Amino acid sequence: MARKSVLVLNGPNLNMLGLRQPEIYGTMSLKDLDQICVDAAKDAGWTADCRQSNMEGELVGWIHEARTDFDGIVINAGAYTHTSVALRDAISAAETPTIEVHLSNIHKRESFRHHSYLTPVAVGMICGFGAHGYVLGIQALARMADE
Amino acid sequence: MARKSVLVLNGPNLNMLGLRQPEIYGTMSLKDLDQICVDAAKDAGWTADCRQSNMEGELVGWIHEARTDFDGIVINAGAYTHTSVALRDAISAAETPTIEVHLSNIHKRESFRHHSYLTPVAVGMICGFGAHGYVLGIQALARMADE
Amino acid sequence: MARKSVLVLNGPNLNMLGLRQPEIYGTMSLKDLDQICVDAAKDAGWTADCRQSNMEGELVGWIHEARTDFDGIVINAGAYTHTSVALRDAISAAETPTIEVHLSNIHKRESFRHHSYLTPVAVGMICGFGAHGYVLGIQALARMADE
Amino acid sequence: MARKSVLVLNGPNLNMLGLRQPEIYGTMSLKDLDQICVDAAKDAGWTADCRQSNMEGELVGWIHEARTDFDGIVINAGAYTHTSVALRDAISAAETPTIEVHLSNIHKRESFRHHSYLTPVAVGMICGFGAHGYVLGIQALARMADE
Amino acid sequence: MARKSVLVLNGPNLNMLGLRQPEIYGTMSLKDLDQICVDAAKDAGWTADCRQSNMEGELVGWIHEARTDFDGIVINAGAYTHTSVALRDAISAAETPTIEVHLSNIHKRESFRHHSYLTPVAVGMICGFGAHGYVLGIQALARMADE
Amino acid sequence: MARKSVLVLNGPNLNMLGLRQPEIYGTMSLKDLDQICVDAAKDAGWTADCRQSNMEGELVGWIHEARTDFDGIVINAGAYTHTSVALRDAISAAETPTIEVHLSNIHKRESFRHHSYLTPVAVGMICGFGAHGYVLGIQALARMADE
Amino acid sequence: MARKSVLVLNGPNLNMLGLRQPEIYGTMSLKDLDQICVDAAKDAGWTADCRQSNMEGELVGWIHEARTDFDGIVINAGAYTHTSVALRDAISAAETPTIEVHLSNIHKRESFRHHSYLTPVAVGMICGFGAHGYVLGIQALARMADE
Amino acid sequence: MARKSVLVLNGPNLNMLGLRQPEIYGTMSLKDLDQICVDAAKDAGWTADCRQSNMEGELVGWIHEARTDFDGIVINAGAYTHTSVALRDAISAAETPTIEVHLSNIHKRESFRHHSYLTPVAVGMICGFGAHGYVLGIQALARMADE
Amino acid sequence: MARKSVLVLNGPNLNMLGLRQPEIYGTMSLKDLDQICVDAAKDAGWTADCRQSNMEGELVGWIHEARTDFDGIVINAGAYTHTSVALRDAISAAETPTIEVHLSNIHKRESFRHHSYLTPVAVGMICGFGAHGYVLGIQALARMADE
Amino acid sequence: MARKSVLVLNGPNLNMLGLRQPEIYGTMSLKDLDQICVDAAKDAGWTADCRQSNMEGELVGWIHEARTDFDGIVINAGAYTHTSVALRDAISAAETPTIEVHLSNIHKRESFRHHSYLTPVAVGMICGFGAHGYVLGIQALARMADE
Amino acid sequence: MARKSVLVLNGPNLNMLGLRQPEIYGTMSLKDLDQICVDAAKDAGWTADCRQSNMEGELVGWIHEARTDFDGIVINAGAYTHTSVALRDAISAAETPTIEVHLSNIHKRESFRHHSYLTPVAVGMICGFGAHGYVLGIQALARMADE
Amino acid sequence: MARKSVLVLNGPNLNMLGLRQPEIYGTMSLKDLDQICVDAAKDAGWTADCRQSNMEGELVGWIHEARTDFDGIVINAGAYTHTSVALRDAISAAETPTIEVHLSNIHKRESFRHHSYLTPVAVGMICGFGAHGYVLGIQALARMADE
Repeated sequence: MARKSVLVLNGPNLNMLGLRQPEIYGTMSLKDLDQICVDAAKDAGWTADCRQSNMEGELVGWIHEARTDFDGIVINAGAYTHTSVALRDAISAAETPTIEVHLSNIHKRESFRHHSYLTPVAVGMICGFGAHGYVLGIQALARMADE
Repeated sequence: MARKSVLVLNGPNLNMLGLRQPEIYGTMSLKDLDQICVDAAKDAGWTADCRQSNMEGELVGWIHEARTDFDGIVINAGAYTHTSVALRDAISAAETPTIEVHLSNIHKRESFRHHSYLTPVAVGMICGFGAHGYVLGIQALARMADE
Repeated sequence: MARKSVLVLNGPNLNMLGLRQPEIYGTMSLKDLDQICVDAAKDAGWTADCRQSNMEGELVGWIHEARTDFDGIVINAGAYTHTSVALRDAISAAETPTIEVHLSNIHKRESFRHHSYLTPVAVGMICGFGAHGYVLGIQALARMADE
Repeated sequence: MARKSVLVLNGPNLNMLGLRQPEIYGTMSLKDLDQICVDAAKDAGWTADCRQSNMEGELVGWIHEARTDFDGIVINAGAYTHTSVALRDAISAAETPTIEVHLSNIHKRESFRHHSYLTPVAVGMICGFGAHGYVLGIQALARMADE
Repeated sequence: MARKSVLVLNGPNLNMLGLRQPEIYGTMSLKDLDQICVDAAKDAGWTADCRQSNMEGELVGWIHEARTDFDGIVINAGAYTHTSVALRDAISAAETPTIEVHLSNIHKRESFRHHSYLTPVAVGMICGFGAHGYVLGIQALARMADE
Repeated sequence: MARKSVLVLNGPNLNMLGLRQPEIYGTMSLKDLDQICVDAAKDAGWTADCRQSNMEGELVGWIHEARTDFDGIVINAGAYTHTSVALRDAISAAETPTIEVHLSNIHKRESFRHHSYLTPVAVGMICGFGAHGYVLGIQALARMADE
Repeated sequence: MARKSVLVLNGPNLNMLGLRQPEIYGTMSLKDLDQICVDAAKDAGWTADCRQSNMEGELVGWIHEARTDFDGIVINAGAYTHTSVALRDAISAAETPTIEVHLSNIHKRESFRHHSYLTPVAVGMICGFGAHGYVLGIQALARMADE
Repeated sequence: MARKSVLVLNGPNLNMLGLRQPEIYGTMSLKDLDQICVDAAKDAGWTADCRQSNMEGELVGWIHEARTDFDGIVINAGAYTHTSVALRDAISAAETPTIEVHLSNIHKRESFRHHSYLTPVAVGMICGFGAHGYVLGIQALARMADE
Repeated sequence: MARKSVLVLNGPNLNMLGLRQPEIYGTMSLKDLDQICVDAAKDAGWTADCRQSNMEGELVGWIHEARTDFDGIVINAGAYTHTSVALRDAISAAETPTIEVHLSNIHKRESFRHHSYLTPVAVGMICGFGAHGYVLGIQALARMADE
Repeated sequence: MARKSVLVLNGPNLNMLGLRQPEIYGTMSLKDLDQICVDAAKDAGWTADCRQSNMEGELVGWIHEARTDFDGIVINAGAYTHTSVALRDAISAAETPTIEVHLSNIHKRESFRHHSYLTPVAVGMICGFGAHGYVLGIQALARMADE
Repeated sequence: MARKSVLVLNGPNLNMLGLRQPEIYGTMSLKDLDQICVDAAKDAGWTADCRQSNMEGELVGWIHEARTDFDGIVINAGAYTHTSVALRDAISAAETPTIEVHLSNIHKRESFRHHSYLTPVAVGMICGFGAHGYVLGIQALARMADE
Repeated sequence: MARKSVLVLNGPNLNMLGLRQPEIYGTMSLKDLDQICVDAAKDAGWTADCRQSNMEGELVGWIHEARTDFDGIVINAGAYTHTSVALRDAISAAETPTIEVHLSNIHKRESFRHHSYLTPVAVGMICGFGAHGYVLGIQALARMADE
């Protein structure tokens, strides 16, 4: 039987990871983060496909792919978390278990970051644990698939 | 005299039509919907050019084209209806009669779908009639051009 | 088989049509509008019964009649659109397909006209097309009955 | 000594009782409800005069009558509960003990049904017990008159 | 030349004047108030036609009459001041100078009485002077007609 | 067959009944109130267990008991009505018919007393009738059990 | 017996009357307006003392004078109407009948002009009648003194 | 070196786990949940002390203990999440890394459950994964201690 | 004559004083604070009884005691200041002069700390002076008793 | 060493003290209040300079003086408390310890008096103790200077 | 031809420039700032008249002067920016091109500083560039006069 | 030493400059505007790279480039100003001085244009001066680099 696979999506500005505001986001690069996700998926017996885009519409298209090509999504939509109904609708349309993660604790930051359009259509949400939050998300996905 | 032409625009996630949430959006595919619009335009003596994009910026650019290349727009901006000032400004800039349509009755859904940035710059709005709403929009456009 | 019939209801101040604020509502009289509806119904193989009242309670009673005596309602509740829970409840109680229409694009006007108590209990809503909106509403009703 | 009498008022759409939305309002007709009130009044040694209107202004007038002709009011103002300052002012003007009742638990429904213009000028409010709420209201009225 | 005439309209519950809450509305009856208006009109060389209704729709209809039959309106819409878009639209449709009056100072009372749908379509507003406010309104109307 | 039993719960400060603010709460003591409830239950063929606590958590625990040990709850949660999600959740968890009562008409008091977290999970609500409201609540419970 | 006297106060920018925005405020100068007030007072058997200031604190001081030196105040506080709690408190402290006037209908203008800190502590309010509003205010004051 | 220990706290109504609303909370009992936490702690080389209370104040006291006696807290404060500033202050006072968990996805439920007083003072938040969320929280804590 | 006595109440988390967030609350322990209050009471010829609880309900009960056993209350309700209607009602029920104090200036902190349910039922409020605020509160109480 | 000195500032309408609304402000005059402050300062080994102005700008200027000429400010800004950002900025600019006092308990009054622009830039706030509040403020200032 | 002249106005607390909060406003004095403006005007072939006041009313009066005596205004109204409708009305009355400047970026500060009553009646706004913002404002004014 | 360079970014619909709504945006084309910026940069001894996109994500990417390739950014984000958290985060990530400009005075337009997500992360903001605003922005940038 083929391995299950997770689509790991990073939204706008996450390509700047390690450069941008290290006091909030740490010093790890996006490449490092992707490797962590690949390793975590492997530990769970899954494969991971990690992508990043600054384009809301490109993210929408990738989520659509998950409908047929992936067994789950782990998404950090970055700034689009707070403004994108399109991503919310894409997750609904994908009908694939989706877990929302954030590197930082978004409830410690500006009030406009306290609201997420995505949480109500996700399975669950994890925030505040840095890159480890992605690992937790992948574990949660794997466990859900087992049940 | 050349036939008048309508630009029919569909926004994010409408490429998933027929797959996504059939209890809300029905089982018709985007291809079917496009054909219905082409037929309705033909019945009115017009031609229709049907396009879909998940990209806010691409939709903005297409609306700009309407300024010189089309006699009217019928637009279902999907999720961008509720979040996009850019589309609103594009419609204002196009100076082409624009009709807003929605497959579902957006006022029966989540409260963030009750507000549209587009209606105040459109000629009018039609919602709740599924694909037939596009036909009504094209008829309304044709009638306005006759007056 | 008897022809299907539509109840066309106009709310407060619509008896002033053609006299009142022609820059918003045009120069057509209520009598003209009624004729347009009768003709549109006829084109669809239906009959239309057109009524107007300034009384919220009288409109409520007419909607109740639709439960047994009509196959659909096209309603422009005028000012009551924005203030009447009673009309909303009447439409729910009538259990007859109801379409909300407005002559003007209510979203271009004062903010208190942006909210309608009726849309969530109607099949759909059409605004901004003047008298032609009623024609579109009747066509939509007829088509729904065919399906 | 003449029997005391209660004016039982039902507002808009309550004439549809038994027909309209039985999952909310049950299958009892208005006639049945009136009989229940007459019986409850009789049990308390009172008489009941039961009226229903879809007209806000007619209800206002009936409440005025209570000033001289009744010893108490039990009112289910239906939709006008949430929108009518005129009914509130009529109750203040009547200077007759008034009890507000609702068949359904209005706090389980749409948020616009959570606010009542009438409660602050009523003696008290009873909701959620179906027709039995009227009986409780009549009992409460009778008991208050005894004290 | 015929005398000019003013339509004096009183809304819901004002038929209870003199009975209802004298600490707010005083002890003068509606009949007394009408006479004061007739006298004030006479002093200004006008005639006055005074009417009262508890029915929103009846008031709407009377305002429509003013379009052709009166030279001005003085209106105390009572509770409908705060809830009726229909009366607002009727005043706009009447295209007759309209002055809003209130017996009490509505800004000393409950907050829902602080907003009037009518003031923005009236010439002006007068409140807090009891019956004398009607006299001031008639004088203002007469003076405006002179200018 | 064993008699049915009702759990009558009074929340914070109700132990001060008869002492505290008699203009709002009357001069009856909590002991008197309990006796009234016991009598009302007896009249209905039920037994009543009356308890009072100032502790939110203790009230939560007692409500849990009702799941297995009582046939219904009559609760006046006092100040916790307006602030306690924990009590709301306890009532949901108890899966026992629950009726909310208040001695005073809470809609005549400060605006923060107009909202109840409990009403949406209760069968119904009764307020404004003093101790007699508890009697009405017990009667309603008994009648519901009969149906 | 000495003549009664009214203090007529004009707030900030009213010294620009006749120059400033004639489409809102007309072409009459402040000097003209003062004369109209003096004449109106004389007609009523009173004297008028007319003052204008751009200083909130100076207006406060003048209102204090009215406590002992005037029989009434007619005040158009201009912009301070909407922002000054100090003027409100001064009017309360003066314990002299005060009438608020506005040249324009403030409810036709920006929403921040719809709220007045002064109306709840004034006897009444008159707006929308230009300079004639001051005359009406003085007449109202005189009549109140007669009663 | 002594094992590190985690204090696992469950708030009001969580003692009803397995009984209460299984469609939201599942069928696992609190005892089962405690065992899962003990096992997860053990897997991480820690010990777990699991406690539940319906008392806000008792939870406050237990959190204070963590200051000296525990290396971290995993807390599901249940209903108090949304209403308790006291718990928030206790967590700040404890100066011990604290992770907030919820069994359900609180953003899919009533809007008053969308706000947490605790998240801004917690390290991070995990919701929507049932009992597995506690396991993820303990893993996150252990990993943070390692770094 | 017996000495007058003050009940000094400290709410949740104040047992952590000296440990918790010294940059906000200073380094003084609760024991030190109690001694300061005892000394201040003594200076005023009063006695002080100082208590602390994390339990809302226990604080409610202590306030009830003040009705008969104390001549005044000085209360720092900590976090319950912002969330407890029960404490507010207890203070009303106690009918004993109550002074609210806070160690820190609550208006310099998070916005949810700017609102107090207690101030409107207290004699007055003192905040921002650390432990000295309690001394000021006791002095104010003593002075009020003298007058 | 020179005595330390406090600047005692009173804002608009406080010159009316003793005359204005004695049920709120008592019967003491401003002169009396000033003497109380001078005495309280003397008791603390300080001198007091007491000033009152109805002019926001004059108060601003006096606060600026405190930067170099005073050791502390006690201010009752009256109505400007609720509306003046200028006074707030002046206090920030003065960099002198400032204590806000109010004669009445502002939280028992109109809701617009519940917000103070000054508290967040003051050391602390004292309200509800009449003139004695100024004494408490001066004592608090003196004690702070000692520490 | 006479040189054009600009009126440079500084509002409350700007006389403290260089002393007050240098982390926000820098170390330059008001005298220095005035010189910079004079120089910038000179560079543009204009003259500058620089004034500062803490008095709202004095600023109003100076703006009125601009109607006839200046060719433009550059204003930093300081705290009055956020609270003064009077200054807004003065600018409208002056009918002289007015440019709003702020030393700091007001959108980085407290939320009450994000709203300006002046911007909608100014030509434009410049903030965040310290004293150089005044230079930019004078340049913009000069350029506009040239066009 | 190499010349410093500024990245001039124009957002959605600015490619329509000169065509779109000339009453708001003037008749200058985007090409003209770019030339003005190039010239202004040259005057300041800088170079300018001018780009426009309708794509939010493309603008995000260009801002990232500024981190290493430019000495400053002048951005008119058009409609994205009001809706894009992604652009805000990109500016934070770029750590390059950024100046926000708008052709029109956005505070004279619809209320949704009054809020900018970008201003709090920009150095400053300039609006209302048409194309000249870009010149002022470039001058400000150059001056800041000099300091």
